[in-house]
Amino acid sequence: MAQSELDRLTQLLAKLPGLGPRSARRAVLYLLKRKDSVMLPLALALGDAAARVGPCVQCGNLDTRDPCAICSDPGRDGAILCVVEDVADLWALERIASFKGHYHVLGGILSALDGVRPDDLKIPELVSRVERERITEVILATNATVDGQTTAHYIADRLAGLDVKVSGLAHGVPVGGELDYLDDGTLTAALKDRRPV
Amino acid sequence: MAQSELDRLTQLLAKLPGLGPRSARRAVLYLLKRKDSVMLPLALALGDAAARVGPCVQCGNLDTRDPCAICSDPGRDGAILCVVEDVADLWALERIASFKGHYHVLGGILSALDGVRPDDLKIPELVSRVERERITEVILATNATVDGQTTAHYIADRLAGLDVKVSGLAHGVPVGGELDYLDDGTLTAALKDRRPV
Repeated sequence: MAQSELDRLTQLLAKLPGLGPRSARRAVLYLLKRKDSVMLPLALALGDAAARVGPCVQCGNLDTRDPCAICSDPGRDGAILCVVEDVADLWALERIASFKGHYHVLGGILSALDGVRPDDLKIPELVSRVERERITEVILATNATVDGQTTAHYIADRLAGLDVKVSGLAHGVPVGGELDYLDDGTLTAALKDRRPV
Repeated sequence: MAQSELDRLTQLLAKLPGLGPRSARRAVLYLLKRKDSVMLPLALALGDAAARVGPCVQCGNLDTRDPCAICSDPGRDGAILCVVEDVADLWALERIASFKGHYHVLGGILSALDGVRPDDLKIPELVSRVERERITEVILATNATVDGQTTAHYIADRLAGLDVKVSGLAHGVPVGGELDYLDDGTLTAALKDRRPV
C-alpha cells in the first residue's frame, strides 16, 4: 500500500489531545476535501508558528514577540504579577480580560510523586523578579488542587521576607453552580468567606 | 495583541471534526511544546499530503498514486466492485482486509432533502464501468440508513438490465451485540436471515 503519507498524517494528528486514531482519520478526510481552504493554510500556520512562536524571556508566555505582547504592553501594570502553572492558565485568565498586570509562568507545579522540585520550575526566577522589579503584589493563581496549593504555599514562604503583598484566588461557589453538587471543601470555603450582600 | 499567528492556528485546528475552540487551544499548546517531534513533522505531512494526494480516476479513493494502490494492485480481483458512499467507508472496509476486489466511491448518497440527484454522484460512472469492464458482481455497501438504502435500490435498478450480480451487505446482530439493546428492524432482519449453525 502506498498509503504511507496518509498513514503518517493520521498518526501525527492522532497524537493531538482530544483526537484518537478514528477521529484523526475523519480529520484527514475532512482536510483532503478542503485542501485550499483548510489543509494548506493549516500547514502554513503550523510551520509559521513553529518558527516564530517561543517563550517570553520575562514571563514564559508563548508569543511571536519576545518580550511577549503582554509584557511589552505599556497599558498594563508591571507591579502586579499573576503566577500561573502553565501557559494554558495564562490564556484562560487573558480570555476574561479583567486582569491588567503581568504574568509569571511556572512551567509546572511542585510534585513529590513526579519528582518536581522548586528549581525545576521558574520559582527562583520569580523570587529574583520580585527582588529586582518594583512588584507590589503577587497573585498566586495555581490550580486549586493539592499540588497547586502546595506550590502556592511554598512560593508564599519564599516571598515572605520580601516587601510584597501575596494573595490567592478566592474559593467559593462557581457562578451558575448548584450547592447540592458542590464538594464539602468548596462549600466550607464559600461559607467561611461569605460576603455582605 | 500580537497573538494573531496563534489565534489563526487555533481557529484552523478548531475546524477539524472532533475539535472545538477549547481543545484546539490545548492542541496548540501541546504542539508548541513539541515543535520538532510533532509540530514541524505535522506541517510537512499536511503540505505533502495536500500536494500529492488526490482522487483515483478509476474508483475515487484518495491516494498519492493515480490509479490508486488498490486499483493498480495485480493481486486484487477487478471483477468484483464494492460500491461505497465515501472514502471513509472504503478505508473502513480496507481495515478488515478481507475484501480483495475493487471499489467505487459514490461521493455521497441520494437525498431529496439535500437535493442530491443521481448525476451529482458517481452513478453514471459506475454504470459505464459495469458496461465497459468485465464486472461480475457489484456489492452495494452504502450505509444502512434510509438514504443509503434508497441509493442502493436506485443503483440496483440502474444495473438491472446488465449481466451482473448485485448484492448488499448482510443485516443482523452486530458481533458482540446484545439482543436487548437492538432495534426492531435489525432483530427482524437477523431472525429472517437466520442461518444453520
